Amino acid sequence: MLKRGPSSTAGVNRGPFLTPDVAVVGAGPVGLAIAWRCAQRGLRVAVHDPAPGSGASYVAAGMLAPVAEAYFGERELTGLLTESAGRWPGFAAELTEATGADIGYRTEGTLMVGLTADDLAEARRLWAYQQGLGLPVTPLRPSQLREREPALAPGVRGGALAVTDHQVDPRRLVAALRGAAERAGVLLVPEPVRQLSDVAAGVTVVAAGCGAAALTGLPVRPVKGQVLRLRASGGGPPGFRHVIRGYADGEHVYLVPRDSGEVVVGATVEERSDVDISAGAVLRLLRAAVDLLPELAEYDLVETVAGLRPGTPDNAPILGPLPDRPGVLAATGHHRHGIVLTPVTADLITGLITGEGADEPLLTPFRADRFRIHSAGSEQSREDDAWN
Amino acid sequence: MLKRGPSSTAGVNRGPFLTPDVAVVGAGPVGLAIAWRCAQRGLRVAVHDPAPGSGASYVAAGMLAPVAEAYFGERELTGLLTESAGRWPGFAAELTEATGADIGYRTEGTLMVGLTADDLAEARRLWAYQQGLGLPVTPLRPSQLREREPALAPGVRGGALAVTDHQVDPRRLVAALRGAAERAGVLLVPEPVRQLSDVAAGVTVVAAGCGAAALTGLPVRPVKGQVLRLRASGGGPPGFRHVIRGYADGEHVYLVPRDSGEVVVGATVEERSDVDISAGAVLRLLRAAVDLLPELAEYDLVETVAGLRPGTPDNAPILGPLPDRPGVLAATGHHRHGIVLTPVTADLITGLITGEGADEPLLTPFRADRFRIHSAGSEQSREDDAWN
Repeated sequence: MLKRGPSSTAGVNRGPFLTPDVAVVGAGPVGLAIAWRCAQRGLRVAVHDPAPGSGASYVAAGMLAPVAEAYFGERELTGLLTESAGRWPGFAAELTEATGADIGYRTEGTLMVGLTADDLAEARRLWAYQQGLGLPVTPLRPSQLREREPALAPGVRGGALAVTDHQVDPRRLVAALRGAAERAGVLLVPEPVRQLSDVAAGVTVVAAGCGAAALTGLPVRPVKGQVLRLRASGGGPPGFRHVIRGYADGEHVYLVPRDSGEVVVGATVEERSDVDISAGAVLRLLRAAVDLLPELAEYDLVETVAGLRPGTPDNAPILGPLPDRPGVLAATGHHRHGIVLTPVTADLITGLITGEGADEPLLTPFRADRFRIHSAGSEQSREDDAWN
Repeated sequence: MLKRGPSSTAGVNRGPFLTPDVAVVGAGPVGLAIAWRCAQRGLRVAVHDPAPGSGASYVAAGMLAPVAEAYFGERELTGLLTESAGRWPGFAAELTEATGADIGYRTEGTLMVGLTADDLAEARRLWAYQQGLGLPVTPLRPSQLREREPALAPGVRGGALAVTDHQVDPRRLVAALRGAAERAGVLLVPEPVRQLSDVAAGVTVVAAGCGAAALTGLPVRPVKGQVLRLRASGGGPPGFRHVIRGYADGEHVYLVPRDSGEVVVGATVEERSDVDISAGAVLRLLRAAVDLLPELAEYDLVETVAGLRPGTPDNAPILGPLPDRPGVLAATGHHRHGIVLTPVTADLITGLITGEGADEPLLTPFRADRFRIHSAGSEQSREDDAWN
């Protein structure tokens, strides 16, 4: 859409800030990564957000899990997740190189486990589907499971390894992306955007998570997730190294260990728009976590937090131009996948802006025009909309 | 010990503050109530505390439960609890009259319940003991239980009513006591007391909870309690009116409803001195709470907090003069009973100070000289001390 801007001597615009080439609404990982990528191409970029990193990413666990997150009926999404996960090693290395920041990128892989026979039967159905897609799922005997993670409950019936499913710390990621973007010349504007006409730029990218609905009329709805953070007592690292995802008496839970001693336990998936913490959710998450990994009972509970994922009617993101809104691109609707999809989203949207990636076939399934779009703020005809 | 001070025109000393007749160390409910009572008698009183109301009372549920808290082997303590609970209606009325404050004093009574047959068998053994002491425990049929509290889980096997076991809101209580004390002329000194020789007063009262050990050498140890606060969604009151105490699959829990919608869920009893929140404790408390009252799963979890009760070797408070420390009185070691024992403690200690209650037989079992007392700060001979 835009030609590459005039190259500055270092690719960085630090002079008087003119009307930007690109305005990004939303300083979560997706918005910041787009801004960084665009600034690397020599574009003048402003990112608008009163509270960078305070949205869904603040709550997210940071699993990069194209395999474990490959669900029935989401083949195209699985393809995008796999593509983006494949870009993560380079993305992480480049970001660390640019900033010196440790973003908690870890590659031990993910153990998928089932506590009871019923849990294992349900898990195996999904693993067979994932293997059928050619994804790397390696079933493990109980003895192999325990060799990898001796802290697993003795009752855990079985599991499988997704060796390519990694993790990153989303809060560190946001801080690093912000640093990288600012070093590349991106201007952060700490103010909310009420309507897109308030933003003056060559191209506006809406990376506002759930806020995209009000700004664009796109069918993006909040999907509440409640998450706990535990911490190993005594200051050491947790007593396990893999991300563990499992079914425990029908309850799905994930456990993400960090070097700092933190363990993220998540998450509910609720069609609600509040961010209250409910006693029942905390009970279910803790029960499932302790059922799978008994030592977690001794950990400190240091945080309970809820966030709102931007969900779409087909659970897939919305990437690209808005019909009838020239100069406006969407990069939202990432639902449970915002962290893993950050690199590919940034690359694809930047390609659209520079005009070099307009024909990218990866984008086709995720175009905005697959949905009916409301007038921003309008409630009319909602009942016959695709997302009902 | 002291004669009643010169009466001022309104019983209030607001002039230049001279060396006080009484210095109280600790502005929890016990310390503030003693200060208030002494000031009512015309004494000049100072209370020393850098953070009034931030100790065990901040965490406490506020059950006034001489019956439900009557345990095997604690007859003399039960007598004091009963005596103090009997003073609560007058104490609450006087405090409300003095300040206009609502302290959340409620008299619906307490339901004691058992979830399983085993729980009920354990509970019945205790109820029989309590009835044997002549305490008012009324066994209820399941239908009677549900008439009183329809929200109880259908599986709850049985229960009993302790009609005289009431409740108060400890945080409101502290605020009201502070207001009453200040109106009566008490000076609050917002600084810590490192050693008793720093305090200049005719009589010094150590009402410092766990802090009493370091100040006096008394065998007071921290007993950690973790407590949750839930809140009914939507802003209404909770869906039950009695305090509910119960056994649920061997787990003991209490549920205290407040008019504000708050429900206090407690409590662990741990021989530890940290105030961390542990995942296992939250899990056990929530599981027991939801097992007894399923609707609590829908409540918001609004607070997790831990405090340190001042425990003694025999679980009973220490009230009265310290041997070999003339002019120093103890009012500590209230363990799980600080709120219910506040009125009687204030009356008894004030009686000792004015000299009118020196022979009070109620005090005899709770004298400091029943324990060996360390030199303050000394670690020596701890291994042969009564509290090991």
